Amino acid sequence: MATQAKATPRKRLLEAAATLTYQHGVGIGVDALCQAAGVSKRSMYQLFSSKDELLAVSLEECAAACAAWLLPAADDDCPPRERILHVFEQVESQAGAPEYRGCRYLAVQIELKDESHPARQVARRVKGKLTAFFRGEAGRGGASDPDLLARQLSLVYDGASARAGIQADNLTGLIAPTISTLLDSAGVR
Amino acid sequence: MATQAKATPRKRLLEAAATLTYQHGVGIGVDALCQAAGVSKRSMYQLFSSKDELLAVSLEECAAACAAWLLPAADDDCPPRERILHVFEQVESQAGAPEYRGCRYLAVQIELKDESHPARQVARRVKGKLTAFFRGEAGRGGASDPDLLARQLSLVYDGASARAGIQADNLTGLIAPTISTLLDSAGVR
Repeated sequence: MATQAKATPRKRLLEAAATLTYQHGVGIGVDALCQAAGVSKRSMYQLFSSKDELLAVSLEECAAACAAWLLPAADDDCPPRERILHVFEQVESQAGAPEYRGCRYLAVQIELKDESHPARQVARRVKGKLTAFFRGEAGRGGASDPDLLARQLSLVYDGASARAGIQADNLTGLIAPTISTLLDSAGVR
Repeated sequence: MATQAKATPRKRLLEAAATLTYQHGVGIGVDALCQAAGVSKRSMYQLFSSKDELLAVSLEECAAACAAWLLPAADDDCPPRERILHVFEQVESQAGAPEYRGCRYLAVQIELKDESHPARQVARRVKGKLTAFFRGEAGRGGASDPDLLARQLSLVYDGASARAGIQADNLTGLIAPTISTLLDSAGVR
């Protein structure tokens, strides 16, 4: 059996930040983060200038995995309608899981009331990419108003993941008819 | 000019909790709450058993004013379609305001990760009333599937207020076509 190298303190801190802020919110303390990562506070402050920076880098580093999970493969050759529906099927597939708390990039923006917080700015940028994905597919799919459809899909995405994340709705039987109605109305067949 | 009686410490604490948690989140400290209310911590703990209880009562007491602002008058004799649209027009009217941070009852549920927190339970109950309002109007309006439409409207409400609250979308030109499409699809004319 190959010996697996232990993750670096930096990586362990980023993972602890990702896990603990998702479970407990951005108010989680530095002590708890360092303890979960098995890293001293002194080491943490050598690696990151502040907890704010740790949160921001953690969100940045989660983005690729989130996108890989959420978005269809760039070269899947599926029509835009299917590619859009794929995103919502992914959200619905998580909605029933007890540990699901909705989209972390929305939660961070709601929790951090200060718009200039570096983690909030990262979250905003990451979410912008999802809207840009919807905008691209809407255009390729011949939507009558691609900008409007992209805003509608972003709105439904945030509403759906938020409501699933607070256990207000399990999304079963909700997402497909809602998205289909909006796509039909926009002329994306 | 009539002399206005100063609000009681209880009322001042509830108002401080409503204002400060909306602006800064539920992590706001007891010291800040007491200072804003001009009430000693000792007095606060005589009036409320904990900060959690203060937050819960504050949300409970905001609910009537929120509903009065959001919902149409019970006896306005307007058709269900108009009564539903009224709710979304109210949200849209706030969306541009710099101090708007979205629905406080959604934010509290996202911020408080513990489902058993008394404030989260109040928030959940208050939000349930909005879904019940939508369900009632959907039924009266002859929706093909009133439960589905109520869930869709709740989802759009949360998505719209969340996105407006984080300045991701000003909602202009977004809400009316989205709700109209869903109402048309459900057969609510």
